[in-house]
Amino acid sequence: MDWRDQVQRPILVVNRERAEANIKAMAEKAARSGVVFRPHFKTHQSAHVADWFAVRGVQAITVSSVRMALYFAAHGWKDITIAFPVNLREIDDINDLANKVNLNLLVLSEAVTEELASRLKTQVGLWIKIDVGYGRTGIPWDRTGEVVKLAAQIVKAEGVQFKGLLTHAGHTYHIHSTTARAEIFKQSAERMQHLRGEMIEAAVIAGAEECAISVGDTPGATAVDSFAGVDEVRPGNFVYFDAQQYRLGSCRETDLAAAVACPVVAVHPERKEVVLYGGAIHLSGQFEMLNSQESESARMYGYVTQANHDGWGEIESENYIRAVSQEHGIARVSEEMCRHVKPGDILCVIPVHSCLAVDLLDTAITTHGDLFSLDL
Amino acid sequence: MDWRDQVQRPILVVNRERAEANIKAMAEKAARSGVVFRPHFKTHQSAHVADWFAVRGVQAITVSSVRMALYFAAHGWKDITIAFPVNLREIDDINDLANKVNLNLLVLSEAVTEELASRLKTQVGLWIKIDVGYGRTGIPWDRTGEVVKLAAQIVKAEGVQFKGLLTHAGHTYHIHSTTARAEIFKQSAERMQHLRGEMIEAAVIAGAEECAISVGDTPGATAVDSFAGVDEVRPGNFVYFDAQQYRLGSCRETDLAAAVACPVVAVHPERKEVVLYGGAIHLSGQFEMLNSQESESARMYGYVTQANHDGWGEIESENYIRAVSQEHGIARVSEEMCRHVKPGDILCVIPVHSCLAVDLLDTAITTHGDLFSLDL
Repeated sequence: MDWRDQVQRPILVVNRERAEANIKAMAEKAARSGVVFRPHFKTHQSAHVADWFAVRGVQAITVSSVRMALYFAAHGWKDITIAFPVNLREIDDINDLANKVNLNLLVLSEAVTEELASRLKTQVGLWIKIDVGYGRTGIPWDRTGEVVKLAAQIVKAEGVQFKGLLTHAGHTYHIHSTTARAEIFKQSAERMQHLRGEMIEAAVIAGAEECAISVGDTPGATAVDSFAGVDEVRPGNFVYFDAQQYRLGSCRETDLAAAVACPVVAVHPERKEVVLYGGAIHLSGQFEMLNSQESESARMYGYVTQANHDGWGEIESENYIRAVSQEHGIARVSEEMCRHVKPGDILCVIPVHSCLAVDLLDTAITTHGDLFSLDL
Repeated sequence: MDWRDQVQRPILVVNRERAEANIKAMAEKAARSGVVFRPHFKTHQSAHVADWFAVRGVQAITVSSVRMALYFAAHGWKDITIAFPVNLREIDDINDLANKVNLNLLVLSEAVTEELASRLKTQVGLWIKIDVGYGRTGIPWDRTGEVVKLAAQIVKAEGVQFKGLLTHAGHTYHIHSTTARAEIFKQSAERMQHLRGEMIEAAVIAGAEECAISVGDTPGATAVDSFAGVDEVRPGNFVYFDAQQYRLGSCRETDLAAAVACPVVAVHPERKEVVLYGGAIHLSGQFEMLNSQESESARMYGYVTQANHDGWGEIESENYIRAVSQEHGIARVSEEMCRHVKPGDILCVIPVHSCLAVDLLDTAITTHGDLFSLDL
């Protein structure tokens, strides 16, 4: 049966072979580098896809919310890091989780650490969130005293175990040079090594083995040949990649493992545009700016490709979503695509950011026609 | 009990009195104008909020998807227009719906109309979607021959009933002058009246009563004093309004009836920034550009206000979300707010687009503490 026959509304289409190859490549790089591979499961949010990681030996995982942790705990995963600053209002669920799995949390202030420690009923691991230059959150890497002081507090506190330093170097998402991204990976590792050295100097810890270094961004993880310098890697996006990673050079076109299949609902030949059932609530509102070589400088909410029996066709830069509203995606397409497509057909959109599309959609289908849920 | 005590994670907070006042004002304007009030329920997506419309006499509603139509049909609504071009791949659900309720659909091509008519098992109403200048979808208003021909096809077809001409003048969402928005409302009505006149001229219909004119954008509906010139209005956003409508001048600050309550997870006094649990998957990635008077030209993903017992505090333009990632919202705030807020507190974000935030969130709470579901 052709997978396309099962599509009524926007759905994630997954090329399983590509996803498995992406997982294998990253797992092997981590193994070669001698580091813990703790992939971020927020990209796929699926117990079904999680099995593809398990067969590669993955046991430790990263998630972005307490709810996601509860979901994967319910599916048998036993070692979970919630890579988001602790939300004290979820303390009941956190205690519930800590009772069932090895749980690791992120902190960046003494006040939260103190309150957390006083309200926990079971021991959890604590990572200090470091900002190595992204500017989103975490203690800035150069505020050494603050980091050492927080580490000392955690080491002494009851009911929590100090794990180490964790960062997300998200500034790599905007750097098109692979060399420059590899440089950021190296710089992040060095900045955290320096902080670890200061902790040893201050006798907060006895040696490096008491403070792991964890990093986790796909653009950095794909840019380096080895993860030397860190102890743990947490990339997530690489399982599917997306239009953003493809444009960055983090992956080849043949590594793209997910698309959003969207029914065509209208064709406007006079504007060379096609209206898809697939808008901001399916693809997200995230866009890339096309440069002037590709088009007049324009927003691009995803590449539009033909759907075929095996998945989707090649990316052609003239076929893309130029605008989204709640349910509508407005695709600018070539004269040829416009001539051949008709309402009721399916087109496949390579989303700008696969993590967001996965979060928004409720169902996925492999190109072999196997349906699976994306509802946490 | 204070509503804030029930907040663990991002949730929609609804000021019921304001929403009810917004509904009353729009229902009364429609009644005064002698037009059908068929509000768009995609903004609230809730059977609970739908009851607040029912007490104002609303019986006919608009939705944006087949799934939303199924939800409201299951909650007893009997007259539903799906204001999105027919997706032929959902024909089974459409037949299911048509069997239960008075269902109206949108078409803009003869091919879809023909296929739809041949596959329908129960009669549905058909509206022709007209593009009055927005440029999203619909038959352009000046292609008179095409509209008349499609109307003739519908009038003759078995199993469908011609309802009239429907448009969404979405270009009003970018026009800050109330007078100019009122002008677009008038222009839209005139363009559709002209098309109706041509249908009468061509003897496709006998008179105006055989072709209703339906319009539906909140910025236009709030700009005019009377809906004279049309037969039906379908605004939706006005029930809650949002930061975009407030900035446009479609509403007063005291009309804003919904916010997203977000737990604070980190405070960065050195940058005057606060990190909220509330990101792209809660607020959406839609932003407004702040102009140079308000700030350095910057993206704004929502206004940040204090949460209080009765709801939320006043908007101050220096407090806003400057960036979102999947779960994080990065708020730039005043020195004073930064000094007083701490992790575990709640801040309320007035979202840029309330329809999208509602779609993304799964739960709402009124300022009186009544929880209700947003899951369709």
